Amino acid sequence: MPYVNIRITKEGATPEQKARLIQGATQLLVDVLGKNPATTVVVIDEVDTDNWGIAGESITLRRARGE
Amino acid sequence: MPYVNIRITKEGATPEQKARLIQGATQLLVDVLGKNPATTVVVIDEVDTDNWGIAGESITLRRARGE
Amino acid sequence: MPYVNIRITKEGATPEQKARLIQGATQLLVDVLGKNPATTVVVIDEVDTDNWGIAGESITLRRARGE
Amino acid sequence: MPYVNIRITKEGATPEQKARLIQGATQLLVDVLGKNPATTVVVIDEVDTDNWGIAGESITLRRARGE
Amino acid sequence: MPYVNIRITKEGATPEQKARLIQGATQLLVDVLGKNPATTVVVIDEVDTDNWGIAGESITLRRARGE
Amino acid sequence: MPYVNIRITKEGATPEQKARLIQGATQLLVDVLGKNPATTVVVIDEVDTDNWGIAGESITLRRARGE
Repeated sequence: MPYVNIRITKEGATPEQKARLIQGATQLLVDVLGKNPATTVVVIDEVDTDNWGIAGESITLRRARGE
Repeated sequence: MPYVNIRITKEGATPEQKARLIQGATQLLVDVLGKNPATTVVVIDEVDTDNWGIAGESITLRRARGE
Repeated sequence: MPYVNIRITKEGATPEQKARLIQGATQLLVDVLGKNPATTVVVIDEVDTDNWGIAGESITLRRARGE
Repeated sequence: MPYVNIRITKEGATPEQKARLIQGATQLLVDVLGKNPATTVVVIDEVDTDNWGIAGESITLRRARGE
Repeated sequence: MPYVNIRITKEGATPEQKARLIQGATQLLVDVLGKNPATTVVVIDEVDTDNWGIAGESITLRRARGE
Repeated sequence: MPYVNIRITKEGATPEQKARLIQGATQLLVDVLGKNPATTVVVIDEVDTDNWGIAGESITLRRARGE
């Protein structure tokens, strides 16, 4: 029954990469806690770089500096 | 003062359906716990089917199989 | 597959009331969007009144004034 | 290490305003709890007015009445 | 910079198991998307079985039936 | 109508500090976006240090090393 929410910046993750995140997170819960995969939910949120901040500034600004 | 977050896949919910979710969730909190509707917040997140997984695979794949 | 998160202040909701919230939120998704109840998840978070604010002050303070 | 999630309706917040929210929320955690800004994350979610409800109705309806 | 929130029922996960969840979720983001582990945050929420519902009823009730 | 969720580790924040977080986050939304404080909700989650990870390990381990 676990619920996993993965939040990342929207920077071009492909459907294949997102499928791997879903598969990997589900397997992690099975391996570590013996959870039932059939009711394990994984939701990926892709967030605009203007809307994600770390160290007090947006990812947009960090990317513009090449970070 | 409750906050209710309803997360569903983005598969064409209409404004009327979303209005019913908002109304129904608010009324539920009033009926069960006597909460004040004036400060009850309901937020609906619609998530791309590539970004929602259950049983280790995305909803996109399940829909492609007719599930 | 919906996921519903209900956040309320921790002020003595009983197991029976929480069961009604779970049942009611699940039924709402069935009624409005035809969702499958078997994979509908409802999670209730009960939050300390010191940790919930509205209008810039905590619920603890509002309760102390009889609100 | 704090994580701050600010959810607002999508009604035209500019990149500059979002940058101020990121900066202000980060500074608040530094000032009040002495947290390290380098690992303080702020994520802003902008939600469609059809998907945000208060008092049992959507913000879209409230805006249409001039509220 | 990813943020991962893992929500499970509170049924005795040990610190070692939680450490494995943190390590595994972080590694998943590194492997699939090349994210920087230094700023990858994982937060585990353990939720009372009375407060988690699936299929319209609480986990407490399901456990009582041996499920 | 904004909703702000502040997640921190549970390491002794006082009611006074939490009141300042509530007040400060509410004022930030008023100052930057002109939001109505009366319907601005702030919820603080305090998370056990075993349940919060960064760089692939728990805060408990980092604190034990004096970080």
